Amino acid sequence: MLRRAGAFPRVSIDTGKSLIKFCNSCGAEVTHRIPDGDSLLRAVCDACGTIHYQNPKIVVGCLPAHGDRILICKRAIEPRYGLWTLPAGFMENNESASEGAAREALEEANARVEIEDLYTVYSIPHISQVYMMFRARLLDTDVSPGVESLEVKLVREGEIPWDQLAFAMVKRTLEHYLEDRKRGSFTPRFGDIRPPNR
Amino acid sequence: MLRRAGAFPRVSIDTGKSLIKFCNSCGAEVTHRIPDGDSLLRAVCDACGTIHYQNPKIVVGCLPAHGDRILICKRAIEPRYGLWTLPAGFMENNESASEGAAREALEEANARVEIEDLYTVYSIPHISQVYMMFRARLLDTDVSPGVESLEVKLVREGEIPWDQLAFAMVKRTLEHYLEDRKRGSFTPRFGDIRPPNR
Repeated sequence: MLRRAGAFPRVSIDTGKSLIKFCNSCGAEVTHRIPDGDSLLRAVCDACGTIHYQNPKIVVGCLPAHGDRILICKRAIEPRYGLWTLPAGFMENNESASEGAAREALEEANARVEIEDLYTVYSIPHISQVYMMFRARLLDTDVSPGVESLEVKLVREGEIPWDQLAFAMVKRTLEHYLEDRKRGSFTPRFGDIRPPNR
Repeated sequence: MLRRAGAFPRVSIDTGKSLIKFCNSCGAEVTHRIPDGDSLLRAVCDACGTIHYQNPKIVVGCLPAHGDRILICKRAIEPRYGLWTLPAGFMENNESASEGAAREALEEANARVEIEDLYTVYSIPHISQVYMMFRARLLDTDVSPGVESLEVKLVREGEIPWDQLAFAMVKRTLEHYLEDRKRGSFTPRFGDIRPPNR
């Protein structure tokens, strides 16, 4: 989905939590405390009893391949405006992860894909996001930039702009893919991505 | 985490969306409409401009194995009170998926585990959840029920209560695990779980 303030919601960079001040159920001011039987600070409404949980968000995407070429997109939105990425975005309610990955390819690159296996899964705890990237078969090469992309293109291994990639998860996913393709066998990977300066 | 109203937040079963009536940022009443540049209905605050996105939640858990036995937990909470499950619960902000899976084993069964590979990933679109289940090594057999469990036990293949399992994802994860263990090689699986009556 396109989010007006960029691809990321209004959150504090340190915690991934947006600041809840009011109860979205009754409109009363909330207090921030640890509810009975819980161990973490939550926004609690003492007026109506609602506890406002905040949880990590899922970003779904894919690596669309057509022969030996891979579809990449130049970001038209912050963060990382002007850098290259694989089509990916926030998973929506009432869709599966693979449906979301296909939707993002269509939205960002007008690309029709057949989603194959889940390929990389990365937790990024400091921004409370989990990336789920699928391998995908690009069904035709009739692609063009969606509103979140400045440019889209199909690149061979030697043409990947390694120093212009938007996110660590894009670099890792591409590296694993190229390694696995050489080996002739794709193995799913999972792991965590921590801030580079810690 | 323990959620006071059971393991699931207050959501409509059909959509997975809790009903947002007020802006949690400024307290004004929201309207439900499709924002400019978007394609889905959102809770929008016309007073302060905040768009309240709602996205799928991640449930993280593990299959803790000790020799040929598997740790299972009898649920002390709704939904599926009294049925058996693998330790799992909502992933928290600022943790990785594997950290969350280990935390849930500790909370639900006082079980110390070493998380191994990501093993099954299931999207459940009709309740807007994604399950991420890891294989895990149970470090010792000193386990006991946490507050969300009535009972915990280590079971061999023939002792699994197949007709008393709480969730489809538990059944599928156990089935895959037993198959793979016989083969001597574990292969990650992913897929979607749809309502049984559709």
